[in-house]
Amino acid sequence: MVTAITLDNIEHLAIGSSFLGTGGGGDPYLGSLLCREAIAKLGPVRVISVDELSDDDNVFIAAAMGAPTVMIEKLFSIEDQHRAVETLERFLGRQATAIISAEIGGCNSMMPVAYAAMRGLPIVDGDGMGRAFPALQMTSFNIEGVACAPLTIADEHGNSVLYQTTTGLKAEELARPVAAAMGASVCMSCYPMTGAEARRAAIPKTLSGAIGIGEAISRSNDPRAPIDRLIAVLRAHDYYKDAEVIFRGKITGLERDTSKGWVFGSCTVSAMNGPEQAELKFQNENLIVTVDGRLRCIVPDLVTIVDAETAHAIPTERLAYGQRVAVVGCSAPPMLTTPRALDVVGPACFGLTESYRPIASLSKDMI
Amino acid sequence: MVTAITLDNIEHLAIGSSFLGTGGGGDPYLGSLLCREAIAKLGPVRVISVDELSDDDNVFIAAAMGAPTVMIEKLFSIEDQHRAVETLERFLGRQATAIISAEIGGCNSMMPVAYAAMRGLPIVDGDGMGRAFPALQMTSFNIEGVACAPLTIADEHGNSVLYQTTTGLKAEELARPVAAAMGASVCMSCYPMTGAEARRAAIPKTLSGAIGIGEAISRSNDPRAPIDRLIAVLRAHDYYKDAEVIFRGKITGLERDTSKGWVFGSCTVSAMNGPEQAELKFQNENLIVTVDGRLRCIVPDLVTIVDAETAHAIPTERLAYGQRVAVVGCSAPPMLTTPRALDVVGPACFGLTESYRPIASLSKDMI
Repeated sequence: MVTAITLDNIEHLAIGSSFLGTGGGGDPYLGSLLCREAIAKLGPVRVISVDELSDDDNVFIAAAMGAPTVMIEKLFSIEDQHRAVETLERFLGRQATAIISAEIGGCNSMMPVAYAAMRGLPIVDGDGMGRAFPALQMTSFNIEGVACAPLTIADEHGNSVLYQTTTGLKAEELARPVAAAMGASVCMSCYPMTGAEARRAAIPKTLSGAIGIGEAISRSNDPRAPIDRLIAVLRAHDYYKDAEVIFRGKITGLERDTSKGWVFGSCTVSAMNGPEQAELKFQNENLIVTVDGRLRCIVPDLVTIVDAETAHAIPTERLAYGQRVAVVGCSAPPMLTTPRALDVVGPACFGLTESYRPIASLSKDMI
Repeated sequence: MVTAITLDNIEHLAIGSSFLGTGGGGDPYLGSLLCREAIAKLGPVRVISVDELSDDDNVFIAAAMGAPTVMIEKLFSIEDQHRAVETLERFLGRQATAIISAEIGGCNSMMPVAYAAMRGLPIVDGDGMGRAFPALQMTSFNIEGVACAPLTIADEHGNSVLYQTTTGLKAEELARPVAAAMGASVCMSCYPMTGAEARRAAIPKTLSGAIGIGEAISRSNDPRAPIDRLIAVLRAHDYYKDAEVIFRGKITGLERDTSKGWVFGSCTVSAMNGPEQAELKFQNENLIVTVDGRLRCIVPDLVTIVDAETAHAIPTERLAYGQRVAVVGCSAPPMLTTPRALDVVGPACFGLTESYRPIASLSKDMI
């Protein structure tokens, strides 16, 4: 059980988040540097379970919004993050008592840790996605009826903007152009929740889940191959347990198109020996994988391309021709696969025509 | 002395504001309908002088932002205005005790009256421009060091946005694209002030000034021509006293270019008998007038084109070839002509190369 984020497990969180980022969510490496600095200076960050929240706790999100390509170049600033949260606190007339991640996949799992360290607040073991998704409204918070707004964004020049909108989609629509005008990468806070709301609407245990995944991949005193350790830790997890290596091979095709603030594209992986091919499609995050035309895993279930040797996740922007990879799939947290959830994060939300089917049922068909 | 806005003087306010709008600021006619309705239902709006404000009064602005052409088509809503002010009140943690206009020229002189009626609050006899200007930072509030932000805007769909920026210029830069995304016409509140700040930074007596101008133009029991009555009332005013008819004739040239949310252009007026010509340039508002190449009046002094018969101001968007007009110029409030003020509202701020010279000194040269 994880009770604190320390200098010992921050690297595990970065590696595990990268896996749960399913290709998107940005690279957590720079974020881990910021966390390391904050923890070294201010001490470990206490981790509390969702159940430990009291009804009237004030749970605030710390997050980054923008193009991952820009985020890599602009190191996050805790001060900017504070301005986003502070503006929201001032508007709501209440102070944060706990911090939570909006998405555990990618760099948005790191910023909240550094920010919680600065504020001396605990971080909640949970998040709103249990993975990464490309848009603000794609959260369990939204699925469970928590309003995205008021939402705040802050830039590195001392400016902040607060949105009080009728829908999460509208907040997304009005915030993206300002985020772009602010330099394509901003700090954000949204979905302010009471403890009671967070208990109901957050996906629990994803922070400890990410650390567990990262720890398994990194473990040096284990004779099994890193990918076998990865599959084993996923199978032992409450959500990600229907896990398997869907395909192994090398990247032989890659198409990427950056438009409207997202990276759309596809990736072909070919078997080393034999004619089999796996085909992936992504919008920042990997969405769907087919092998020789047969559906093997589809969003909201997780598809991640990992390095064949190290089992480290390879984000969409780092895919390259000739890489030797494994395509790993696993089941999504159950909160993401209800009929109501599929209206928000299901295949149709990404323009896919295929219906959602759990990875376990797709695997059964293969036998 | 004006102590209340009533059904009797609301029309005078509209006509006077139109003159002080110097061609821009939007048409106050629709706003006057809204005021009429509000006053009929809720009673007259008490007018208080700047001196009556106590130090800890909370003076809030009610205003519209957007393209005048769109504003004409979308009638203002008091509810939307309330959402803009309410968002600001909530963020600041204090309630408005008085309402003030940001600009007395054009439609922004009307909305605050209707809104004050709704809130049962007094309206201050003063504003931030003493005329109309095309941008948020061009106010006496800014000149006197009052911050433009926090600034709020609200649309007709229930969305509102709050900006906490380091400069008024930045607020303008970040608010315009969202205003455009919201439909090019939104309600706004900004420059929240204490009573002490408003006493120092507002231009006093401009609301009663506008009513006086409108009353003089409309008066039916006065044998003098409307334009003579207009010049007489301006000459009796504290600020606008250096007033004269600069030119009479008909419009023989007109260029208008709508870009970046403004109307840029020029207008040529030719004498009825003789070769003389007056040339005006505008950016929403009229900026400069020359007669046969000689400078006669330049911003921040006021230049308004009025109908030759009725003396009603003709806004930029209603100018038409062949109209018989008089070009009236008058001096600006002294708060707008200090060296510090000219850095904010002087000719260079509009890309003009001519330096500011008071209309009185330019007239003297003509003798």
